[in-house]
Amino acid sequence: MADLNLFFNPTSIAVIGASRTPGKIGYAILENLKITFTGKLFPINPQATEILGLNCYPSVLSIEEPIDLAVIVTPAETVKNIIVECIKKKIKAAIIISSGFSEIGEKERELELKNVSKGKIRIIGPNCVGIFQKGMDMMFFPRERLKRPSDGYISHITQSGAVGSTLLDVIASEGVGVARFISIGNKIDVDEVELLAYLEKDVATRAIALYVESITRGKEFVEVAKRIVPKKPIVALKAGKTKKGQEAVLSHTGALAGPAEIYSAAFKQAGVIEAKTTEELFDFSKALANQPALNDNRIAIVTDGGGYGILAADAAVQAGLDLPQLSDNTVKALKNVLPPHGIAKNPVDLTGDATTERYQTALEAVFKDKNVSAVLIIILMQIPTINDGLLDVIRDCKMYGKPFVVCATGGQWIQERARKLEGWGVPVYDMPERAVKALAALAEYGKILKKK
Amino acid sequence: MADLNLFFNPTSIAVIGASRTPGKIGYAILENLKITFTGKLFPINPQATEILGLNCYPSVLSIEEPIDLAVIVTPAETVKNIIVECIKKKIKAAIIISSGFSEIGEKERELELKNVSKGKIRIIGPNCVGIFQKGMDMMFFPRERLKRPSDGYISHITQSGAVGSTLLDVIASEGVGVARFISIGNKIDVDEVELLAYLEKDVATRAIALYVESITRGKEFVEVAKRIVPKKPIVALKAGKTKKGQEAVLSHTGALAGPAEIYSAAFKQAGVIEAKTTEELFDFSKALANQPALNDNRIAIVTDGGGYGILAADAAVQAGLDLPQLSDNTVKALKNVLPPHGIAKNPVDLTGDATTERYQTALEAVFKDKNVSAVLIIILMQIPTINDGLLDVIRDCKMYGKPFVVCATGGQWIQERARKLEGWGVPVYDMPERAVKALAALAEYGKILKKK
Repeated sequence: MADLNLFFNPTSIAVIGASRTPGKIGYAILENLKITFTGKLFPINPQATEILGLNCYPSVLSIEEPIDLAVIVTPAETVKNIIVECIKKKIKAAIIISSGFSEIGEKERELELKNVSKGKIRIIGPNCVGIFQKGMDMMFFPRERLKRPSDGYISHITQSGAVGSTLLDVIASEGVGVARFISIGNKIDVDEVELLAYLEKDVATRAIALYVESITRGKEFVEVAKRIVPKKPIVALKAGKTKKGQEAVLSHTGALAGPAEIYSAAFKQAGVIEAKTTEELFDFSKALANQPALNDNRIAIVTDGGGYGILAADAAVQAGLDLPQLSDNTVKALKNVLPPHGIAKNPVDLTGDATTERYQTALEAVFKDKNVSAVLIIILMQIPTINDGLLDVIRDCKMYGKPFVVCATGGQWIQERARKLEGWGVPVYDMPERAVKALAALAEYGKILKKK
Repeated sequence: MADLNLFFNPTSIAVIGASRTPGKIGYAILENLKITFTGKLFPINPQATEILGLNCYPSVLSIEEPIDLAVIVTPAETVKNIIVECIKKKIKAAIIISSGFSEIGEKERELELKNVSKGKIRIIGPNCVGIFQKGMDMMFFPRERLKRPSDGYISHITQSGAVGSTLLDVIASEGVGVARFISIGNKIDVDEVELLAYLEKDVATRAIALYVESITRGKEFVEVAKRIVPKKPIVALKAGKTKKGQEAVLSHTGALAGPAEIYSAAFKQAGVIEAKTTEELFDFSKALANQPALNDNRIAIVTDGGGYGILAADAAVQAGLDLPQLSDNTVKALKNVLPPHGIAKNPVDLTGDATTERYQTALEAVFKDKNVSAVLIIILMQIPTINDGLLDVIRDCKMYGKPFVVCATGGQWIQERARKLEGWGVPVYDMPERAVKALAALAEYGKILKKK
C-alpha cells in the first residue's frame, strides 16, 4: 500500500529513455509529463544534455536528488540493467512501458526482470501505457489524436493498453471524467488485485472499471473485491471468453485465459458486475460512479417521443426492470401539465410539443412518486419548444436522491448538450436500450449491496 | 405506384398551414422546403400575402397552376375540409403532418378523414414528420439542432417521427447517407407495405430500414418483403415486444401491437433481418446498404491492438461467425511484414507500432486468402506511426470484392476519420462487438439469399 502510493503521488519522476525526437514514444511521454506533472522531472538519455528545456542525465545514478518513480521506455533488452541501476539509486517504484517480454514469447527475459526486482522495487508493466490521472499524463499517444478526460470518479484498470486508452479517448470525448487510469500490461509485479486494494482507500475513486484477459490470483481477487464492493462498485469485462478468444489471449500476452464460466462465477461471488461488451463496461461504470444504487427495480420513463417510450419499456422489461403504475397524485399532477394528447401513465409521454416547464413539473411529480425508485429521462431536444434550460432541470433532479439516467439520441448538437450533463455527473446514453441497461446495472448493484 | 411517385418526385408543392412566425412548424417546413426543393412552392395561409418571399394563397383553390403534392400542418379539426379542397383542386397526394387523430383517441376524426379521401387522394400520415430526401426536406426540426444526412443508399420507413428523425440526426452526424426517409405516422392510407413496393423499384434505394410498432397487413407485408429481399435487404425493428411495450404502443398510436413472436416469425418467413435494438437497426442497415452479402461465415480480423482482437474474436464466435486458419501463403506474407512481436494468425495482430504500409500488405494478403470471406479491420489510429493514408488503404479494399467493416474506437479525432470512411461507403463502428454484429448481419443476408 505504502509502496503503491509512489506510483500515484510521486514528487519526482525519471523518464528513462527520454528522446529528443518528436514522434518517438520517449519524447511523447516526457512532453506529456512536462505538461501535466508539477513535481521534478528528470529525462535520462546518455546521448543528450537537454530535452524539452529540461536537464538530461546519462543515468539515474548521476542524479543527486532522490527519485520517487522511474518511467522506463528503453528497448526490452536494456530494461533489466536499468532496473538494477534504479535499485541502486533506491528508487522504489518503476513503470515499464517497454514491450518485448512474455507477450512475444520472451519469457526468460521477463523472468529475469522479475527475479532482479523482487522485493527491491515495485513494478507496473512491462508492455503497458502507464498511468493517467489529474496531474500525471505519461501516455505516449499524441494529445491531438487521443483526447484526455477531465477529472472524475471512475478509475480504470486495464490489461490492454489499446482497449484502455481508446476507451479513455471515448470517455474524454463524451465529457465523462476519470479518477485514475492504470494500464497493467504483463503485470510481473503489481496486478489488478493489489491495485483494487489501493483504490479501495483512494478517495478520488468512487467506482472501478476493469478490463482483464487473465486473473492469476483468483482467490485474492474475490477476497479484495468482496471487501470493496460494499463501498465502491466494480464493473469487469473479461476478454477471451470463447476458445478462439482464449487462443488470442495466449498469442497476445502469453497468459492462459481459462474458461469464461470460472470468471463469471468469481465475479458473481465477489459482487463484481460483469459487462458483456466494451460498450457495457463504459456505460455501466459511468452510471455506477455518478448515481446512487437502485434498491429495487421500479423505474419510471419520462419521454417526449412516444416511440422512445415504447422501446425503453421493452428494454426495461427485458432487463428485469419493472414499470410500476404511477400514484393517483402523480397522475393528477401530470394531467395538470399535459395537453390532451399527452400520456399520464408510465411511460409518461410529454409529446412532441413538450416544453422545459412541462418536463420540470412532470419530473418533479414522477421523482416524488413513492412507487418510483429511479427515472429514465428521454429527451428529444431537437424540437423547437425545448430550450437549454432543460439541462438545468435535469441536473437539479439530483435533489430527489433517486438514481436517474438520460437518453438523448442525435448528432453534434445533442452531443454538446450531453457533454454538459456528463460534466454534472448525469450519465447520458444515445440509445434507449443502453440507458435502460445502465439502470439495470444500478439495480444489480443495489441487489449486491443488500446481500452484504 | 404511379400515385406514390408524386410523393417523391413532385414538381410543385403546396404547404397548407404555412406560417409567418419563425419557430412555428408551418414556418420551419416552408423554410426547409425553400432551401431544398427546386420545384414550385406555394404557401397557403388566408392571413398572409407573402411568406419567406413567396406569394401566399388563401386556399389551394386560388392557385391556377396544377399542384402535385400538398403538405398539411393545420390544426387537426381543419384537416378534413382541407383534404376536400385538395380533392377539388385535383391534388393526388397529401402528407398530413398535423397530429390530433387516433393517437389521442380521436378515432372518429381519423375515420372521417379516411372516408373522405378514399380513392380520391393518396395520404401519408397524419401525425408524421413527412419525407426527407435529396432535394426535399419538409422536416420541421431546426437545421442547427437536427443535422440532415447526405445522399446515400439506405431508405428509412418509420412509424415514429421521433425515433426516425433523431436516428437521421445520428446518421448525418456519422457521415452516413440516406436515400429516402419516410415517416408514416398513423398511416390511414399509405403504409409500410405500399412503400416497400415503391422502394423495390427505386434505383436510389439499396437497403431498407424499417421501424414499426404495428403492421396491419401482415400477409401483404410478408409477400412484398419476400419479393424485395433477393434484390435489396430489409432490416426491421419492432417496438412493443413486451406487454408493457404493447400497452405503450396502444397509448401512443391507438394500434394493437400484437405478440412479438408473430412479428419475428413473419420477419423470418419474409427474409427480413430483425434488429433487436435501435443501435442494431442503424448498424445493420449501413452495412447492408454499402457492403456485399457474406456468403458464409468465415471472417478474418486484422488489428493493431491485441485486446481488440480478443474482444472481436469472442464476439465473432458468439455471433456464429468462424475464424478460419489463414492459408500458408498468407502467413508467409504476414511474417514478411510483421515484426517479431506481431501475430500472423487469425486474429492478425499488427501490434502497436503498426504503419500504414504494414496494414496495406497485411490487408492485401488477408483479403486474397481463399479461406477468408470477409474482414473486420480494427484500427487504433491514435498511435503516431499511422497516418491518414490508412484511410485510402481501407477504401481501396473494395477492389477485393469481399465484405468488410471497420472498428475505430475513439473521440473527435477518430470520429472525423470515421466520417470520411463512411462517406466512401465503408461502415465504421466504435466498438468491436458492434462491428462483429454488423458482419453477422451480412452473413444472415447471405443465408437469406441462398434460400431464395
